Amino acid sequence: MDIINLDHISSNPLLPEVKEAMIAALQEDYHNPSSQHKRGEAAAEVLGKARKTVSALINASNPKEVVFTSSGTESVNHAIKGVALANAQKGKHIVTSNIEHNAVIRSIRRLKGLGYSVTSIDVDKYGRVNPADVAEAITDETILVTIMHSNNETGTIQPIEEIAKITRQKKVIFHTDAVDSVGIVPIDVQKMGVDLLSFASNTFYGPTGIGGLYVRRGIMVWPLLDGGVQENNKRAGTENLIGIIGMAKAAEMAKQELSIRMAHLEMLKSKLITELPKYIDEVIINTPPEYSLPNLLSVSIKYIEGESVMLMLDDDDIAVSTRSACATGSLRASHVLISIGLSHADAQGTLVITLGQDNTEDHIDRFLKSLRNVVKTLRNISPLYRKISQS
Amino acid sequence: MDIINLDHISSNPLLPEVKEAMIAALQEDYHNPSSQHKRGEAAAEVLGKARKTVSALINASNPKEVVFTSSGTESVNHAIKGVALANAQKGKHIVTSNIEHNAVIRSIRRLKGLGYSVTSIDVDKYGRVNPADVAEAITDETILVTIMHSNNETGTIQPIEEIAKITRQKKVIFHTDAVDSVGIVPIDVQKMGVDLLSFASNTFYGPTGIGGLYVRRGIMVWPLLDGGVQENNKRAGTENLIGIIGMAKAAEMAKQELSIRMAHLEMLKSKLITELPKYIDEVIINTPPEYSLPNLLSVSIKYIEGESVMLMLDDDDIAVSTRSACATGSLRASHVLISIGLSHADAQGTLVITLGQDNTEDHIDRFLKSLRNVVKTLRNISPLYRKISQS
Repeated sequence: MDIINLDHISSNPLLPEVKEAMIAALQEDYHNPSSQHKRGEAAAEVLGKARKTVSALINASNPKEVVFTSSGTESVNHAIKGVALANAQKGKHIVTSNIEHNAVIRSIRRLKGLGYSVTSIDVDKYGRVNPADVAEAITDETILVTIMHSNNETGTIQPIEEIAKITRQKKVIFHTDAVDSVGIVPIDVQKMGVDLLSFASNTFYGPTGIGGLYVRRGIMVWPLLDGGVQENNKRAGTENLIGIIGMAKAAEMAKQELSIRMAHLEMLKSKLITELPKYIDEVIINTPPEYSLPNLLSVSIKYIEGESVMLMLDDDDIAVSTRSACATGSLRASHVLISIGLSHADAQGTLVITLGQDNTEDHIDRFLKSLRNVVKTLRNISPLYRKISQS
Repeated sequence: MDIINLDHISSNPLLPEVKEAMIAALQEDYHNPSSQHKRGEAAAEVLGKARKTVSALINASNPKEVVFTSSGTESVNHAIKGVALANAQKGKHIVTSNIEHNAVIRSIRRLKGLGYSVTSIDVDKYGRVNPADVAEAITDETILVTIMHSNNETGTIQPIEEIAKITRQKKVIFHTDAVDSVGIVPIDVQKMGVDLLSFASNTFYGPTGIGGLYVRRGIMVWPLLDGGVQENNKRAGTENLIGIIGMAKAAEMAKQELSIRMAHLEMLKSKLITELPKYIDEVIINTPPEYSLPNLLSVSIKYIEGESVMLMLDDDDIAVSTRSACATGSLRASHVLISIGLSHADAQGTLVITLGQDNTEDHIDRFLKSLRNVVKTLRNISPLYRKISQS
């Protein structure tokens, strides 16, 4: 199947260099890095090297501040639950936003069941949090602020540096879910001033099943996985060394190529935004013009259902998403789109188009042509659209 | 390096067939199984097939009872913390044994910090739990019994079926850590009658970074990772599909070859037990003659330190372990060996020899010869040994 992938946020293909590194690692039969004999030491050395490479992508001051996890979701759970449980004696209040990923929302919901309280901040029409609202939400009981770096449905990038200034001044731990940002836009944990940052390998063309959590030295966080002393005592369990090697190769290349990749994505996104109105009318662009990911465009197509568009595009061998793959199966309108002020009807007509390095201008042309036909067909059978167009 | 691996419990090499399956999977660029377009559906189908294969290895009645995790450690954490938190309204008492893996011990310790209480049962000189002791330890407040299937330091296999009869009768949830058993000895969750069972792919020559948790239908357990609806809502996070495919291939082969593999291991272990006294005197065999793993032999060599033996064997290109790789860095004597009645001195002189399919009779011969020299050298410089041999 020669399918055009415009759903990179759900899955990025592995880079050829990443595949090569992983295949070489598979052939190596590395031993357990915790074993104290020669074969264990050789594995530990490879692990240490990979940690250094990955930590460079986010500019951590020390590789030991990076914990390898099994996914962005695990990183988020580890950060939120780990900080909340480790700091319970200081307070049980958490500040977050209304547009977080389910990993954040549901981790916090779990903590509510254990007696924690939460203040969730609203966003503006661009999906942005106002740092002043964070300052206002923090109480003497607040132990954690968790605000995502970029949103997976609108692409909105938050003013993380400004929020970090507030949390530092108020001595509250700050975590940011940067799963859709690291490897796509420049991320510097030192410059940003965050205490914890979650990220995932697949975002930058590494394998799934492996992620990272940055934990600034000195931050109190309980392990999510207790047991052995792996990952500097922050995460037990034998390491996924093949995945880690793949992630490190992907991180190395993302760091090298970041500006070239961004330019490619911005060019395609700009073409998409410019040409979309030539193909279909009555669309709402949900992604803000500024402060947004270069690879994501969210559009709401009026009078039709995004789900139907997605399935019909699929028949044309074009993959897009209506919302996060993690929320698949949910029939409710996206909480993110409702939060930025969309009506339920417009939210249901939303497509999330996410671009990747493998996309070309031709892909955009073919997508727009296919979309025009799909929208025409669906609107023709939409009672609402007929009523409106006749009036 | 042509190193003889007698430390399989720390790391098993991947089977060639597993490598092949993983390399093919790497080339496929599977999409996200949660995505609803064709490419997502293709990935979901592969995932479903793998789950069926893995569930067959433990004879689960339904593949949906198997949750893919990132390690045996995660499975154990998920089972223990998940059951404890989900059933807190019924009670907060847990029954376990004195010889569990650190993943169990430390998960329970974490729960103690949240107000749970624990009864830890002692074992006999073979490391076996008496089921009557479990019955006695259960109170009206008990919500979970967790007893390992086989011990990673002595190889002792517990009377799990008998314990399960008691927990069923008393309506208490029963979890067993079978990380060192599944794929090595026959495991049938239905016949055993357990409610939850933890296992790991690398035990049966699959990749690290992937494990499984069997959860009998109807058992209340909170996810450890909250977020998306993956794994039938039991574990959020994009799946490690390449790892899962490797695990499924390894599971398929383990099921097919189990009896042949066991025969090979038993032959080597028997040779080791028979010939060891011909090479060195004053050794204690800690592994019980019956009810033990076919691939593990624990021996305590009097008057010397296991750590020194391990390092000197390493110089001879032979890898063994002194204890669990997960406990590396700990200077305390093994809690398992102390529990079976060993003195601190004898515990420190312990080697854990774990055999694999790649081992041959020649490996045993070379190991024994090397061990004889190492022990001779070390005893010659041991003041205690000289004192005793002169008296």
